Amino acid sequence: MLFDVFTIFPDGLKPYLEISILQRAIKNGLLDVHLHDLRSWTIDRHHTTDDTPYGGGGGMVMKCEPVFAAVEDVLGAPPACPVIMMTPQGRTFTQHVAQELVAYPRLALVCGRYEGIDERIREHLITDQISIGDYVLTGGELPALVLIDAITRLIPGALGDPDGAQDDSFASGLLEYPHYTRPPEFRGWGVPEVLQSGDHGAIARWRREQSLKRTLEKRPDLLEKFDLTPADRKYLARLREEQSQNSAPTTSEQDQG
Amino acid sequence: MLFDVFTIFPDGLKPYLEISILQRAIKNGLLDVHLHDLRSWTIDRHHTTDDTPYGGGGGMVMKCEPVFAAVEDVLGAPPACPVIMMTPQGRTFTQHVAQELVAYPRLALVCGRYEGIDERIREHLITDQISIGDYVLTGGELPALVLIDAITRLIPGALGDPDGAQDDSFASGLLEYPHYTRPPEFRGWGVPEVLQSGDHGAIARWRREQSLKRTLEKRPDLLEKFDLTPADRKYLARLREEQSQNSAPTTSEQDQG
Repeated sequence: MLFDVFTIFPDGLKPYLEISILQRAIKNGLLDVHLHDLRSWTIDRHHTTDDTPYGGGGGMVMKCEPVFAAVEDVLGAPPACPVIMMTPQGRTFTQHVAQELVAYPRLALVCGRYEGIDERIREHLITDQISIGDYVLTGGELPALVLIDAITRLIPGALGDPDGAQDDSFASGLLEYPHYTRPPEFRGWGVPEVLQSGDHGAIARWRREQSLKRTLEKRPDLLEKFDLTPADRKYLARLREEQSQNSAPTTSEQDQG
Repeated sequence: MLFDVFTIFPDGLKPYLEISILQRAIKNGLLDVHLHDLRSWTIDRHHTTDDTPYGGGGGMVMKCEPVFAAVEDVLGAPPACPVIMMTPQGRTFTQHVAQELVAYPRLALVCGRYEGIDERIREHLITDQISIGDYVLTGGELPALVLIDAITRLIPGALGDPDGAQDDSFASGLLEYPHYTRPPEFRGWGVPEVLQSGDHGAIARWRREQSLKRTLEKRPDLLEKFDLTPADRKYLARLREEQSQNSAPTTSEQDQG
């Protein structure tokens, strides 16, 4: 899979591609990332990529010319693959969107300054707009890396462990169960006995229940979309019952109130 | 404001701190970021920070010892500031959370591997858990940079332009209006006349309406939480009316159907 990233800060992005899973995916020929410096497509002496906004107000606006020139020079006109702009105004990136995008052999990511990008780029060059969350960043560079990282994990073979991506939070639709590794006791805090039992059925059950419990506590919205098994439903019903008993005030507490 | 970042990949993070707004904030003494390599707190020859999970299954789990040792060595025991773990299981990061966190003079960010971190770290060391979105990444490094970037923008003086952060998408609660810069015509696509009129009242009105329109089209959920003025309501009512007229099928279209 090939990503073409258009940015004015290629040096800020490069090192993240040289570590861990992305580095290995590139080495194994599963991933390639071409960083294109938008300043190379400017024609003035100062390599200007932004200018003041029409109508006044603060901030600078990214200019049309270098972005159109760079994208069309690398990808042709019209561009040969989806051209995604990273912007807080885009559709929200989720694991589901990552699964959708990993199907493309090539994607272009345009990193705008978040302060503003000339609207004509959005209207006439960009084919998709994606936001990684409801917060404001300096530019699209971190969002581009987030996309590349999340999507690369889904390329078959990119994770050393073939089951890795399936167990992750959100991949199954539930939050992940708790993990423990050695030592068996740290500062008096132990490891749940079931995990040391060697009983694979019991371990699988415990992990499933912990995932359900955690999702119920922290992200009940995820449960609504999840395809629960009858055993899941039974466990969740029991959990909810326990919770309502625990949260019901006792007579003595009411007396004190 | 000081961030202490605990990671096994400090070299992958460092260059992003050396560009643009973060670089300037550091130079101006508004921001400091200390990157701590968790491997420096390992005691074995191979600098091991992870191990296989109890109960089996794929993936590696980040060990207790180096994380506790690093955080307590740098921040004391118990740590002198909030210790935030970047994890898909945390509360969702938003512009509102960024505004909450910028109030702290110091924050510690622990970058776990997303495959798993020993539960005892979560239970006994971490005071807050934050997720930047519903997707799975290789580790907490990009999320840590996202937090630092979004929070730094809110430090008074960090943006060159004092109004910059207020105009951003989400900062006002609405998506941003369209921006334009020179040239006035690019490939036959012009700039809205009002922006070239010099009429500041008309420009402000146009921008407000464009923000409302865009938010209604792309993120109607944001409007529900937004404190609309009477003029906003009137404009939105008109927009909704226009839309319902446009989407109503005409008689001839019904005939063809």
